[in-house]
Amino acid sequence: MQAAADVCQRPSTSMKKLLIDADTGVDDAQAIMVALAAPDVEILGITCCYGNTPLENVLKNTLRVLKVCNRLDIPVYRGCSQPLLARKRHASDFHGQDGMGDVPDPDAPGLELLQKRRGVPAMVKIVNQNPGEVTLVATAPLTNLAVAVQLDPSFPEKLKALYIMGGNTDSRGNTTMCGEFNFVADPEAAHIVLNRYTCPTYIATWEFSCRNSLPWSFCETWLSQNTTKAAFMKEITSLSMKKQQSAEYQKEITAGKGFNSCDTYAMAAAVDDALITESEEVSSASFKIQSVESLKQLLVLLLQVAVTVELEGLYTRGMMVLDYMELLNKKHKATIMKKVDLERFKQMLMDALK
Amino acid sequence: MQAAADVCQRPSTSMKKLLIDADTGVDDAQAIMVALAAPDVEILGITCCYGNTPLENVLKNTLRVLKVCNRLDIPVYRGCSQPLLARKRHASDFHGQDGMGDVPDPDAPGLELLQKRRGVPAMVKIVNQNPGEVTLVATAPLTNLAVAVQLDPSFPEKLKALYIMGGNTDSRGNTTMCGEFNFVADPEAAHIVLNRYTCPTYIATWEFSCRNSLPWSFCETWLSQNTTKAAFMKEITSLSMKKQQSAEYQKEITAGKGFNSCDTYAMAAAVDDALITESEEVSSASFKIQSVESLKQLLVLLLQVAVTVELEGLYTRGMMVLDYMELLNKKHKATIMKKVDLERFKQMLMDALK
Amino acid sequence: MQAAADVCQRPSTSMKKLLIDADTGVDDAQAIMVALAAPDVEILGITCCYGNTPLENVLKNTLRVLKVCNRLDIPVYRGCSQPLLARKRHASDFHGQDGMGDVPDPDAPGLELLQKRRGVPAMVKIVNQNPGEVTLVATAPLTNLAVAVQLDPSFPEKLKALYIMGGNTDSRGNTTMCGEFNFVADPEAAHIVLNRYTCPTYIATWEFSCRNSLPWSFCETWLSQNTTKAAFMKEITSLSMKKQQSAEYQKEITAGKGFNSCDTYAMAAAVDDALITESEEVSSASFKIQSVESLKQLLVLLLQVAVTVELEGLYTRGMMVLDYMELLNKKHKATIMKKVDLERFKQMLMDALK
Amino acid sequence: MQAAADVCQRPSTSMKKLLIDADTGVDDAQAIMVALAAPDVEILGITCCYGNTPLENVLKNTLRVLKVCNRLDIPVYRGCSQPLLARKRHASDFHGQDGMGDVPDPDAPGLELLQKRRGVPAMVKIVNQNPGEVTLVATAPLTNLAVAVQLDPSFPEKLKALYIMGGNTDSRGNTTMCGEFNFVADPEAAHIVLNRYTCPTYIATWEFSCRNSLPWSFCETWLSQNTTKAAFMKEITSLSMKKQQSAEYQKEITAGKGFNSCDTYAMAAAVDDALITESEEVSSASFKIQSVESLKQLLVLLLQVAVTVELEGLYTRGMMVLDYMELLNKKHKATIMKKVDLERFKQMLMDALK
Repeated sequence: MQAAADVCQRPSTSMKKLLIDADTGVDDAQAIMVALAAPDVEILGITCCYGNTPLENVLKNTLRVLKVCNRLDIPVYRGCSQPLLARKRHASDFHGQDGMGDVPDPDAPGLELLQKRRGVPAMVKIVNQNPGEVTLVATAPLTNLAVAVQLDPSFPEKLKALYIMGGNTDSRGNTTMCGEFNFVADPEAAHIVLNRYTCPTYIATWEFSCRNSLPWSFCETWLSQNTTKAAFMKEITSLSMKKQQSAEYQKEITAGKGFNSCDTYAMAAAVDDALITESEEVSSASFKIQSVESLKQLLVLLLQVAVTVELEGLYTRGMMVLDYMELLNKKHKATIMKKVDLERFKQMLMDALK
Repeated sequence: MQAAADVCQRPSTSMKKLLIDADTGVDDAQAIMVALAAPDVEILGITCCYGNTPLENVLKNTLRVLKVCNRLDIPVYRGCSQPLLARKRHASDFHGQDGMGDVPDPDAPGLELLQKRRGVPAMVKIVNQNPGEVTLVATAPLTNLAVAVQLDPSFPEKLKALYIMGGNTDSRGNTTMCGEFNFVADPEAAHIVLNRYTCPTYIATWEFSCRNSLPWSFCETWLSQNTTKAAFMKEITSLSMKKQQSAEYQKEITAGKGFNSCDTYAMAAAVDDALITESEEVSSASFKIQSVESLKQLLVLLLQVAVTVELEGLYTRGMMVLDYMELLNKKHKATIMKKVDLERFKQMLMDALK
Repeated sequence: MQAAADVCQRPSTSMKKLLIDADTGVDDAQAIMVALAAPDVEILGITCCYGNTPLENVLKNTLRVLKVCNRLDIPVYRGCSQPLLARKRHASDFHGQDGMGDVPDPDAPGLELLQKRRGVPAMVKIVNQNPGEVTLVATAPLTNLAVAVQLDPSFPEKLKALYIMGGNTDSRGNTTMCGEFNFVADPEAAHIVLNRYTCPTYIATWEFSCRNSLPWSFCETWLSQNTTKAAFMKEITSLSMKKQQSAEYQKEITAGKGFNSCDTYAMAAAVDDALITESEEVSSASFKIQSVESLKQLLVLLLQVAVTVELEGLYTRGMMVLDYMELLNKKHKATIMKKVDLERFKQMLMDALK
Repeated sequence: MQAAADVCQRPSTSMKKLLIDADTGVDDAQAIMVALAAPDVEILGITCCYGNTPLENVLKNTLRVLKVCNRLDIPVYRGCSQPLLARKRHASDFHGQDGMGDVPDPDAPGLELLQKRRGVPAMVKIVNQNPGEVTLVATAPLTNLAVAVQLDPSFPEKLKALYIMGGNTDSRGNTTMCGEFNFVADPEAAHIVLNRYTCPTYIATWEFSCRNSLPWSFCETWLSQNTTKAAFMKEITSLSMKKQQSAEYQKEITAGKGFNSCDTYAMAAAVDDALITESEEVSSASFKIQSVESLKQLLVLLLQVAVTVELEGLYTRGMMVLDYMELLNKKHKATIMKKVDLERFKQMLMDALK
């Protein structure tokens, strides 16, 4: 079966090479399945990081997702099991005790399928073997990426691009008063990545994902597809959907109510990033507005600005900081996603469960 | 002349008693003149604070404004000359070296007109003499207010209401990356006030004022009125208007371009606060939305939320923090202004120069 | 009786004028009684501050001490009831629930004996009436002093000298890991005082008092004097002596075991400060060593260095910082007490209970 | 030649296995040479870290030291070139532009002699191959150690012991007001190591080394030995000796004047650690005092206490914090060195140049 998979998925020069760094909970699973469904994408590996759930769960969950998609040929690596300095925190109330909705699979693949090489050296090796070609999509706390740049300071410049789910634009936190989960889980790592990764960097923030949430009616349609993948997704998503509809959760969101698959925005933008090269360049420090009409592409309105992370605040530790006033004098700007073509995004989600 | 003023301005029980704490630069002058023009307002005193310009300038500027308005009967007090802990900073590039556009008046009133009593004890005394009746409008760094509550811990509860110009809602700073001038000028004072002033508190933030800026065309109309006050205003406003139209300033603003008289929003809301009692109460932690149709009143859409100030951040020190998730368990909520009835606001400005 | 007191205590030009700022617990009581017993000292007033115990207790305790000493003529003022920003903390486990050993006096004087003027304006007024002549002894959190300099920025320069009990030299805390009680109780106030009080400043730190503690045998002798004052002292000291001899307390102390009347060191040095003018000046940044042979005077070995207070640290907030390397470029140096003539010190304590 | 070295240095079970992590400047060179001269020590490798001088210099300097000692058989690895988060800082004023006294060797060995494996994975591999047997001596910023525990969380527990040169006991800094160079150079790394390395940990702090400095007369004797090694040491030490005797440097030291080879104290204690097993256990939170009379061993008086690192302070960032009051409830205590048998220490230094 893997051989067959190899045949139909054989990488070509035109394929987009993705390296995924995930803390596989529910939305990471959704994001990975969107990537797996993309026709022109080759996934070079998935490095796992603690995050939504402890590392051991993340490893198991990642293998479960790959099994459902019949893609256990993709190498999975054991990355960091804890943040650099922050106290460990998980999101079990949202993702479940096992990080994936507490619907265990008795036939889940075992951890003996993991690669022997550790996650961070694997990231370094994969990128060194494909210099300038790898798009790294990070949907977890950024610990693995922070350690990678210590191992190999030239790692960031060898990446083609970096897509991150994490951070805030408007000081609207979902974990602390002003902090988003992935950044708060390891603020030092987020700081290292935003300051030392000088490759093109695209950030899907918490507020961005809130403002682009999908109607619950779509969710029903999505999960009622008659496929194994849809059945799996329906199972693992059930708990977090209930949570998203709770009163408590409403306090976290900044706007709109609906289904918010945070990590999938970053992944979808990485899979479909051609549009970003079409973006209109405008003067620095003002908005970089893109109006992409292509029906086939994600519509993203973008903002380019230097960013960093607050490390010291009592309320703001882990908050992403945007330097609109250019006080940091940083040359490297990140692209902050603003809007998404929801129809296109829905289609990518639909395809992921086919 | 003062006697005459006393006659026509004699306070009655129906008059709104204002105590103004200002760092009189250009927009404080505009705010004070709006209050002076309001028919049902009695100004019990103006306490001065360093801020836009050093205290000596603030004292002079305040007296100049009162002189132009023929209201030197209003007592002016010398308050704090420096922040509790922050290094002193002023806004001379915006307000001019003298804090009021660098157009000196050779006949400006002298500081011998100041009251002998110091500003902070004066605040305490005035409020103790009018318990439950005084609305305090603070358009400066909040140092005087912070010291007042140390002198008399019951000071805040004796206020009728507190209106503040300062702080941010969306981490968009105008002085530091995430910090607004009045809060950054004395973050500790802002923290003390937001946490110990348990009276009804209304905040006009930086982003709010940006989003409600006025068209430059209005500004021209406003300043071309044929009155002494308009001539004075035109003179002192010239420098800061040029600044507001500069490229550099555009980096600070969050939205909209135009004339932004920050302090005047707080003052106008204080002068016209009847509407606030009409506001619709909605469930805590969600928006408190007011839809006020009265043609005669300011339309303000409001948000109520517990607030505090970040003191420790490298980038976020002085940033106002909004506790949407109710993690602070604070009973006291502040009312965060969202929108303004621009037509009503323009009329108040027009009247101020008549 | 007060008249008689006035006669024998009539201030003369040769008398040292003290203003005492205290949070009267047990050691403050000891310190005040040392000052009262000094023949050439006039106490202009005692301003009270929350600290060892809440302000209401401090006020009562101060009056009780004055009553025992037959000196209710000395004016007592109500100062600040809470720190600028820190959360309120007291030392009830050491000083008792009432702050003075939990041995209530049914005939204690009532708070109607307090002065009407508030503490901080009183400090300012007293010093303005005696410019250059007042030695301020601060044995409490420094909140009153911090507010005073906001009310009157010239207050510090009008002082003759300032004696403080508080802070650390070696990062050895007694309240937090690195912080001493008085400084940790209001770190911002300590910072303000160490940075804005440019008068000659003498600091008796926690480690200094530990290293100069007295043998318990002295304590017995001291308290067994057959006087009303000794009986009072024995009563109020009992609880804290037990605490000082506990295993738990041993973790706090840096050296030596014994009776440590912290506040009294600062007071004794203020009462007997002639010796300090005899001190040998040595090159900056090195130790300023004084060797005073006078049998009648306290022997103090001193260290002069610029000092400030750490405000931000997780473990070090409130810790006094000594700038041996002169990185702050501060002109103003404080004198850090190092050693004390224990025989002389004992005599002062003995005299206090006579 | 390497073969010959292998024969005479063949490791036996009785040999102490050292792994050295160094930022080879002058005192690291001294420390390495002390280890090389020890008869019962096998050096498994030297991992290099930026620090006293940039990483490229550290690599060259390490090879130069090994060449002078005829021990180029020892593997040298390229470790981290920068701290986790702190801005890079070096100590060129003390160690010279090249980190070793600015006396270049035209015949210095080239970097082609370095191992291919990166430093941090090498540390992990070496310790995994010798579990429970390796003593790690860290004389640099602790970045490599911090990254190692992220790569392999079980790395610390597989160490036999860890010896660190770094940190303070008394808030007496040599680089910032309260911070020692190695800890300030990467405070986050120091924090990670003090909190996650649960192996027996011995710390030679800055103040400890100051209090145990050697007389300059010894230094002359030491360097005047008629050997190649002594000639090399005399050359590279010249600049830093002049610096140590300057007025500026006196501000940094806490006590005593003389020759202070900081890193060598940690190394000497590691080489000669048998004495530590003889130490007298005393009650927690009090000093653990060792009195070792053995003529053959280093006399060290030790203090055991939980330690951590302040990360947030303005003045205290990077300061080591000692938890005498046991507020952290940490089970793991470090052993803080207090005194050294200076005669024994001198002999080790003498032997190092023979």
